[in-house]
Amino acid sequence: MKRKLRNDLVASEVWKERRTVVFMSDFGTSDGAVSAMHGVANGVSQDLRLEDLTHEIPQFNIWEASYRLVQALPYWARGTVFVCVVDPGVGSDRKSIVALTECGHLIVTPDNGTLTHVADSLGLLEVREINVDTHRLSGSQKSHTFHGRDVYAYIGARLAAGEISFEGIGPVLPKTVKIRLERARLEGSCLIGSIDILDTRYGSLWTNIKSDFLEELGVGYGDELNLSVSKDGRIVYGYHLPVCKAFTEVEKGQPLIYINSLLNLAVALNQGDFAKTYSIGTGVGWKISFSVVK
Amino acid sequence: MKRKLRNDLVASEVWKERRTVVFMSDFGTSDGAVSAMHGVANGVSQDLRLEDLTHEIPQFNIWEASYRLVQALPYWARGTVFVCVVDPGVGSDRKSIVALTECGHLIVTPDNGTLTHVADSLGLLEVREINVDTHRLSGSQKSHTFHGRDVYAYIGARLAAGEISFEGIGPVLPKTVKIRLERARLEGSCLIGSIDILDTRYGSLWTNIKSDFLEELGVGYGDELNLSVSKDGRIVYGYHLPVCKAFTEVEKGQPLIYINSLLNLAVALNQGDFAKTYSIGTGVGWKISFSVVK
Amino acid sequence: MKRKLRNDLVASEVWKERRTVVFMSDFGTSDGAVSAMHGVANGVSQDLRLEDLTHEIPQFNIWEASYRLVQALPYWARGTVFVCVVDPGVGSDRKSIVALTECGHLIVTPDNGTLTHVADSLGLLEVREINVDTHRLSGSQKSHTFHGRDVYAYIGARLAAGEISFEGIGPVLPKTVKIRLERARLEGSCLIGSIDILDTRYGSLWTNIKSDFLEELGVGYGDELNLSVSKDGRIVYGYHLPVCKAFTEVEKGQPLIYINSLLNLAVALNQGDFAKTYSIGTGVGWKISFSVVK
Repeated sequence: MKRKLRNDLVASEVWKERRTVVFMSDFGTSDGAVSAMHGVANGVSQDLRLEDLTHEIPQFNIWEASYRLVQALPYWARGTVFVCVVDPGVGSDRKSIVALTECGHLIVTPDNGTLTHVADSLGLLEVREINVDTHRLSGSQKSHTFHGRDVYAYIGARLAAGEISFEGIGPVLPKTVKIRLERARLEGSCLIGSIDILDTRYGSLWTNIKSDFLEELGVGYGDELNLSVSKDGRIVYGYHLPVCKAFTEVEKGQPLIYINSLLNLAVALNQGDFAKTYSIGTGVGWKISFSVVK
Repeated sequence: MKRKLRNDLVASEVWKERRTVVFMSDFGTSDGAVSAMHGVANGVSQDLRLEDLTHEIPQFNIWEASYRLVQALPYWARGTVFVCVVDPGVGSDRKSIVALTECGHLIVTPDNGTLTHVADSLGLLEVREINVDTHRLSGSQKSHTFHGRDVYAYIGARLAAGEISFEGIGPVLPKTVKIRLERARLEGSCLIGSIDILDTRYGSLWTNIKSDFLEELGVGYGDELNLSVSKDGRIVYGYHLPVCKAFTEVEKGQPLIYINSLLNLAVALNQGDFAKTYSIGTGVGWKISFSVVK
Repeated sequence: MKRKLRNDLVASEVWKERRTVVFMSDFGTSDGAVSAMHGVANGVSQDLRLEDLTHEIPQFNIWEASYRLVQALPYWARGTVFVCVVDPGVGSDRKSIVALTECGHLIVTPDNGTLTHVADSLGLLEVREINVDTHRLSGSQKSHTFHGRDVYAYIGARLAAGEISFEGIGPVLPKTVKIRLERARLEGSCLIGSIDILDTRYGSLWTNIKSDFLEELGVGYGDELNLSVSKDGRIVYGYHLPVCKAFTEVEKGQPLIYINSLLNLAVALNQGDFAKTYSIGTGVGWKISFSVVK
C-alpha cells in the first residue's frame, strides 16, 4: 500500500506541477544568507514560488527545527518541496538527504534529526542520500561551509522545477538519524507524550498528543485529568486539571487543559505563564502524561 | 454613486484578476503560524501571489493593527485581498467579516476595530459576515483557536482565486466595531486629530491630519503653528513650532512640524526623540491640535 | 569589450524577461513601509516576482548595506533588479541612480556609497541618474521623505516590467560616491584587505580577500600565516595562525584562518568570539593583512 503510494507520487512528480519551495533555517534574516538561497533557487527556474517557514530557529536547535517543520508542513499542499537548514554538523561527515513523506512532500535537509517529528506523526515513504560532490551549484566546490545555499537550495529548486527526479538524487538510505522523542501513546488509562514546544507568548505547554486520544479515553470538555510532567524521570509537576474549551472557564491564574490549533493537547494558566511558573522546558528528556481521575 | 461603485467592483470581481493576498498579524515570524496561513492559501490555488504587510503588530494591539493597515493598503492596487489577524477575542462571540473598501480592496478580519482607520480615512462600501461553521478549511472544525489559518487565510484565498464571490460570504453587516478615534477635522482655525503612531526610530508623532488642511488654513512652509497635545483632556505639551521641509531648518534638539511620507502632519525634534522627551503616547485618548498663531 | 557587454545587456533588456525585484533597506519589518514598496511594485505589474534581501541593515549604515548587497547579489541571476534604500541623505541633494553591473544586474539606489563593494569586486558597466521629479509614482510629488516607495520601488518595478528602458532613466553619471575601502590586494608576500563584516553569531572576521590569493602565495591548508589587524594605522592584533578546513583542527579557544561561504579569507576562534575577544570592528579605517611566515 505504502509502496503503491510511493510509486504513484514518484511517478507523478507532483512537485514539478506544484513548483513551490519553502525554506527553513536558523540563519535569521539580518544578513544576505536567506536571500542567497532564494537567489540560487530563482536562478534554477524563475517559475518557482519561493516561500519561507521561518528562519528564526534558535541556532543549531534541531528539536525546534523538527517541531516547527511538522507544525507547518501539513498545511502545504502535497508536492511542496521543503529546504530545511539547521546544520550544526556542516563540514562533518553527516549525510545530506531528500525525504518523501507519506503525504507527498519532499524535504531536503542534513540527516541530523530534523525529520524526527515528521517521521513520527506523518510518516516517511523513502529517503535518498544526496551526493554533494555532484549535486551542487556549479562553481561552489571550494566552499565547505554553506551547504544550505550550494546544495540544499539548489537541489530543492531542481526537484521543484522537474530538472532532476527524486530517484536521480542518489541511493535509498534505509535509516535516518532521529532525536529521542516520547512517542504519543495510550498506556492503559494514561496518555503519554512529549512537550513539543512552549507557546512563547503565553508559556503554554504544547504536547505531541492528538486530541483524538481523549475520545479513546472517554474524556470530554468539563472532565478532569491528572497531569504529570517529568524531566529525565524526576516529577516536576503533578495536579488534576479540567479540559476546557475556553481559558475563561477557570479562574485567573488557574491551570487548564485545552486543544490547541494543531488539535493536540496543551496545558496553560489562564492569564499566566505555565512553563515559567513551574520551570518546565521542552525537548529531549521531558515527558508529559495525562490519566483519568479515579 | 457609492452604490454604483460597489456594484461595479462586486460585478467585476477585480480580486480574481489581481490574485494577490496580503497577510498581517501579531504572530511574529519565529514559529510556523504565518507559514501555515500561506500554505492554506497556496493550497486553495497555486496561482496566488502571497505577500505580507507585517506580522510584528504588538500582541492584541488593535489600534496599531488598524493603523498599519491604513498605512500600507493604499499602496496596493485595487482588488488586493488583505487577511488581518489581530484577534484578542478568538473563541468569544466576536464576528468574522469581509469588508469592501471604497478603493476596491477586500479585508478579511475579526470584527474588533481593526477596520477603524481604513473606514475613517478611506471608507467602506459594504461589510459581510462570515459563517465560520461553513466557510472554513475542511477538517478544521475541531480547532477553536486558529481562525487566522482555518477561516481567514482560507476565505481570503478563495476570494482572490474567484472560488467564492463577495456576496457568497454571508449577510450584509450594517455596523462594524470601531475603536475610539479623534477624527481629523478643522474647527475654526484649529486642526484637530489623533496621534496615530510613533515613528519608532525617531520618536516623531505621526498624526492622522492630512497636509491638505494646511492649505485650507492658509499655512505654508516657514509659518508657525501652535501645537497642543493632550491625553484624556489633560494638556501634556504646548508650544509654537515652524512648518519645515527639512529637519535641518531648526537647530539640533528643536521641535518642528513636517509632512511625513503619508502626507500627514508630523512632529519631531531635530536629532532628538519627541515622544520620549515629552512622554507622549499613541492610541485611544490622545488628541493633538494645531492652531494658527495670532 | 565592456562596451559590447553593456550594449548586449541593455539591448536584451534581460530584466524584462527576469521580472524579479529584490528589495533591501534599513526599515525593519515592524511597520508597513516594506509592504508599501512591494505594493507599489505590484501595482506597476502583477507579473513581477518580489523578493527581499534584508530590511535589517542597521539604520543609515551604508557600509553594511554595501556589503550585504555584494554578499547576496551574485547568487541572483543576471537581469534581477535590486532596490536598495539605506538613505541617510533623503531630502538633501544626494542623487538617485540606477547602476548596471558587469554581471548584468540593475541596482536602484541613492548615490551614497551603497555600490562600493559591488563596484570594487564585481564592477559597474554604467550608472545613470534618475530625474526624481518625473520618474516617480503619480500623486507622490508632495512627499519629500519616502523616495524608497515613491521613486526607487516604482522605478525598479518599471524597469523589471519593461515599461522603461535603462537608457530612458536619465543621463549617464560618470562617477558615483564611494566609501573608503581597503581594496583586496597582494603586496609582495603580504595579502591586504578590509574586514567586511563580523559573522554576528560567532564573531568571526570576514575579509574581502578572495581565497584564490592563497594559491598565488603558494599557501594551502595546514600552513600558517602572520595575521595583523589595524585600525587607522594602529595595530590591534598580531599573531600567526593556521589555515584550516574545519574549526576543530585547533583547540577550543584557539584562533584559525578559514575560507568562508563567500570563498573569502576569514578569521575565528574555535568555539569563541574573535571580534569581541580582541575588540575588533568593521568598516572604514580597519585593515587586515596576512603574510607568509618566514
